[in-house]
Amino acid sequence: MKKTADEMETVGEMKTAGDVKVSQVKIRDRFWSGIQEKVTDIVIPFQEKVLNDEVPEVEKSHAIENFRIAAGLKEGEFYGMVFQDSDVAKWLEGVAYSLFVKPDAALEERADGIIEIIEKAQQPDGYLDTYFIVKEPEHRWQNLHECHELYCAGHMMEAAAAYAEVTGKDRLLHVTERLADHIISRFGPEEGKEHGFPGHQEVEIGLMKLYHATGKEKYKDMARYFLEERGKNPDYFYQEKVKRGWQHWGQYSLEKLDVSYNQAHLPIYEQKEAVGHAVRALYMYTAMADLAGTDGDSRLYRACRTLWDNIVNRKLYITGGIGGNPEGEAFSNNYELPNDMAYAETCASIAMVFFAHRMLKTEADGAYADIMEKELYNSTISGMQLDGKRYFYVNPLECEPGVSGKLFGYRHSLPERPGWYACACCPTNLVRLITSLGKYCFSESDTAIYSHLYIGQKAELGKADITLETGYPWEGSVLYRVTPKTEERFTLAIHIPYYVDFGREGAELTLNGKRVDAGKLTEKGYVYLDRKWEAGDLVELRFPMEIRRVYASQHVREDAGCVALMRGPVVYCFEEADNGELLQSLRIPRELKAEAYLCENGILKGNILIDVDGYRMRGGEALYSEKPPVKEKVRLTAIPYYAWANRGVGQMRVWMLEEV
Amino acid sequence: MKKTADEMETVGEMKTAGDVKVSQVKIRDRFWSGIQEKVTDIVIPFQEKVLNDEVPEVEKSHAIENFRIAAGLKEGEFYGMVFQDSDVAKWLEGVAYSLFVKPDAALEERADGIIEIIEKAQQPDGYLDTYFIVKEPEHRWQNLHECHELYCAGHMMEAAAAYAEVTGKDRLLHVTERLADHIISRFGPEEGKEHGFPGHQEVEIGLMKLYHATGKEKYKDMARYFLEERGKNPDYFYQEKVKRGWQHWGQYSLEKLDVSYNQAHLPIYEQKEAVGHAVRALYMYTAMADLAGTDGDSRLYRACRTLWDNIVNRKLYITGGIGGNPEGEAFSNNYELPNDMAYAETCASIAMVFFAHRMLKTEADGAYADIMEKELYNSTISGMQLDGKRYFYVNPLECEPGVSGKLFGYRHSLPERPGWYACACCPTNLVRLITSLGKYCFSESDTAIYSHLYIGQKAELGKADITLETGYPWEGSVLYRVTPKTEERFTLAIHIPYYVDFGREGAELTLNGKRVDAGKLTEKGYVYLDRKWEAGDLVELRFPMEIRRVYASQHVREDAGCVALMRGPVVYCFEEADNGELLQSLRIPRELKAEAYLCENGILKGNILIDVDGYRMRGGEALYSEKPPVKEKVRLTAIPYYAWANRGVGQMRVWMLEEV
Repeated sequence: MKKTADEMETVGEMKTAGDVKVSQVKIRDRFWSGIQEKVTDIVIPFQEKVLNDEVPEVEKSHAIENFRIAAGLKEGEFYGMVFQDSDVAKWLEGVAYSLFVKPDAALEERADGIIEIIEKAQQPDGYLDTYFIVKEPEHRWQNLHECHELYCAGHMMEAAAAYAEVTGKDRLLHVTERLADHIISRFGPEEGKEHGFPGHQEVEIGLMKLYHATGKEKYKDMARYFLEERGKNPDYFYQEKVKRGWQHWGQYSLEKLDVSYNQAHLPIYEQKEAVGHAVRALYMYTAMADLAGTDGDSRLYRACRTLWDNIVNRKLYITGGIGGNPEGEAFSNNYELPNDMAYAETCASIAMVFFAHRMLKTEADGAYADIMEKELYNSTISGMQLDGKRYFYVNPLECEPGVSGKLFGYRHSLPERPGWYACACCPTNLVRLITSLGKYCFSESDTAIYSHLYIGQKAELGKADITLETGYPWEGSVLYRVTPKTEERFTLAIHIPYYVDFGREGAELTLNGKRVDAGKLTEKGYVYLDRKWEAGDLVELRFPMEIRRVYASQHVREDAGCVALMRGPVVYCFEEADNGELLQSLRIPRELKAEAYLCENGILKGNILIDVDGYRMRGGEALYSEKPPVKEKVRLTAIPYYAWANRGVGQMRVWMLEEV
Repeated sequence: MKKTADEMETVGEMKTAGDVKVSQVKIRDRFWSGIQEKVTDIVIPFQEKVLNDEVPEVEKSHAIENFRIAAGLKEGEFYGMVFQDSDVAKWLEGVAYSLFVKPDAALEERADGIIEIIEKAQQPDGYLDTYFIVKEPEHRWQNLHECHELYCAGHMMEAAAAYAEVTGKDRLLHVTERLADHIISRFGPEEGKEHGFPGHQEVEIGLMKLYHATGKEKYKDMARYFLEERGKNPDYFYQEKVKRGWQHWGQYSLEKLDVSYNQAHLPIYEQKEAVGHAVRALYMYTAMADLAGTDGDSRLYRACRTLWDNIVNRKLYITGGIGGNPEGEAFSNNYELPNDMAYAETCASIAMVFFAHRMLKTEADGAYADIMEKELYNSTISGMQLDGKRYFYVNPLECEPGVSGKLFGYRHSLPERPGWYACACCPTNLVRLITSLGKYCFSESDTAIYSHLYIGQKAELGKADITLETGYPWEGSVLYRVTPKTEERFTLAIHIPYYVDFGREGAELTLNGKRVDAGKLTEKGYVYLDRKWEAGDLVELRFPMEIRRVYASQHVREDAGCVALMRGPVVYCFEEADNGELLQSLRIPRELKAEAYLCENGILKGNILIDVDGYRMRGGEALYSEKPPVKEKVRLTAIPYYAWANRGVGQMRVWMLEEV
């Protein structure tokens, strides 16, 4: 098929494409269905038990009990973090999506029960935060900087929107509308209201979701207010602190606060570098991008793009990991990406998926979908053990037993996944990401359907039903079966990963078996197929899945002299379990001889592994020697990064020294 | 000259060789005289001003004022660390040696004045510690774990012995004898005495020096008591804490203490690995080695050797830096030697000189002299700026501006030397090391003179006067002119550095111009020349000074793929000032083409620098790319490590990636 004026009218920018709901996409995928199943069958029930304090071997949660106490249904004291409520909210959001993925009437009934308790805990004025209701009622709204009231509110709004979307039940939605109205009554630009903004961004996302769920402009306006007020007065948190005279974390002192940690050092339009706590930053960028796409606000979109570019070009691990500075779970300097000391919080990678997804609302730029893929196939799911039972908060790119998790500088970076955390943000965040995976696959504008991810599914979209079959990420084969619901012509725009080159052999796109000059139809990482679609139209995409060597910029001192291996979107790593000790003594030859193969046994069954002809350097026993080490041929094995630390504690490295 | 039975009788072990005093060796050396001059002319006067609070721009010391207040000569409060007294003691020790290096009547008078104040501050029972005299008299001797009373006492004993040795004045010696007697009256194995030992070792060295100065066995016995009591009851510090019910550092809690930090986890004979705070450990090992050599105690010597071997084979930076763990200024795991995060405290390298020197008392093993050299030419003097005015506490092997001294994990590791420290141990320690350098050059037994270091000097020893002329460490030329004082034959045993091989061209030893088969006369790193010496006998040593590539063990992950350069005992490093930015992108070819030359200009004048034909790797601007970097020929320059950070802030690396 040639590109003709007739067939190709709408190549170009996507204007504020509409969201596709989780409930429009039924995932049936070789890679993801198993992961979704672990989440619905293992993680959600386990987390429910934790939230109900029925797992004695993990840190007590008390999160639902806090709501019961706040509701007056139980006597007792608040227990847990000041943001303990958000664990319930994130779990409920995950449950909501899971009820579509795998309907479960009993679970829904229990969730309804918890929502009833939440409703009862809500105060007559709409206030809802069990820490302050139960423990410090006199301190409400005095400490936006540290106390997460708006953060918890935001998560409850997200849960409410999800629950309403999937179940059609709006009880929690009404709770959060009353909560949002209460917030609007206290904060805003008007005289007499507090000109504040949260210490941990999240309510901005929640308000946007409440807007999308209800169509009520006031929620979107409030999201914009919180975003645009931020950093206008960089001393706001300090002034708030002086005014209240107390402190939640640490000791009260009058020292100047470093509010770049909270991204409150500058107005959002003036922020050019991603700094501070990574999850706070990315939640903020996500809300900014959603608002930009929703309002068609190009100034705000450009502000988002500047921050996006800084992350992607200076501060992103090859795995999609985000946060090179463990102190403050934060972005580090440009190019400062330590592998063994990485923070790379699971939540930050999840938040980067959110950010990428919201950027796609304004512009179909393949860069966003590429990063979304990178996060999904690597540093998000590395957060969960293959059996679904244990979780990483921190996802390092190098692990050294005896050092990782043990020594100064490395205590945060554990060599194996723990069962639960006192601060349980990451497992709950993973649940809601994986159960809602469907919504990241497509978006839809007036004139086009955009396919962002290759995930097997049946999607019921506005203009068509689409069945997608794929062997991705292991095979470069994707089949779209289109059943249009309209007589009008429309565009199917399909994301083409950055590593696919239609100019090379083996990469081709066919429409009903006829080859399309896909290169010519591709712009910014999307191939645009515009036609009057007919039932049964088949779009087939094939591309070679080569093992690719990746090099970091010379600015990254931690990766100097090293190479990493990728295949498709999957980043590989080398573990001691396959390669013996002293991974630092192994070398990958520049002239790569490597072979990908399906693992058919053991816990890695179903994954594509890579064998590499490499070298092991051998030296003497002395600590220092003037004899150069000698090389010995060895066969090395790399496994997908996300699957590391599933076979006991041992060394692991993503970046391997190269033998040139 | 051939080895004959007649000429070579005493090859072999050195039995408890006697110490040579500082005042026996007048240093006149191309390398060291300038450094000694900086210490006598700049550092000592500056430190005197600091101690007298006459330098407003540095952290207040108050150390001498504390003694005045304790002596009742002034009203006021104690100020400073609990070990503030030791700054005065270490300065006095340095002054004592400097009065030989460069006599200065006015300085001696001022030092006498300070000693008079110290004497007045001493309590009637012999107690001497201004913190407890002035601030907490009720808490004396209750907190050996944290409170440094024995540490300060030890330093005062060292100062006293040095002052008596050089000036012949024994007032401070008597003060410390009374102090030692007071300590003996309180601590010891006898019933009714406290069975304690210090939290920070040092009094053991002090007591040994007091023994050497006075010949009184009780001081040596007390040193042995403190050493052998240590770790017998690993709960001693915990029990002490419970008994007193208060804490000096941090909050009082009943948590179990980690006394491996203090090397109190096991009896000294059972300690096989160097662990915990490096300076505490090395002060302890030094005292153990001194006692072993003094008593001919082979069990104790073997215990020392085990710890020595662990350090030298597992835990020593190539620069001689000690302490891979910034937390606790401590030894890290075996082979865990991070370059950018190194602690490598100046004091620890100085203490390693002490330890090596004391090991030489028992056995003339070149390994000790080699390490002594490594420390002296590298990580001790790197602690001082070339102008003598600023000091490093921490001596990293890699510096990254923007990270070093700034980010989490690296705050301790500064990119430039500060002027002074609140905890001023390192500059004062450097002063006493450099002014007392003479005593490390030789030792003397009944039958032999041992030369450990090549430092230009006139030495007045028991059996001979020796004049030593050398171009070391820049040139491999050493000339000994021997003027015997005895008719008896004796051995001159000369340390031959480990990298000198008499089997190779250019390495030769001549006696009065005649070549000696030095290889045959060499055992364990010493060449043994036994004869009836005659006035004017000339021993001349020549060896090539090659640029040597050094590789770390494959176990050291931080140095994987890297090479370092040495020439003689000097370790080299690469700085941004010579090589431009991104040192991690530079490569040293395995086939080394390098040239050593004398620097004739600028602040590095007089140093031998090394130019290397190397490569710079160039890649694209992208953070990650599938295009391998390409190499470009560049000329690189390496400078002696000790001289780094004298030309502004910039990157520095000792270990460079190698191009194979």
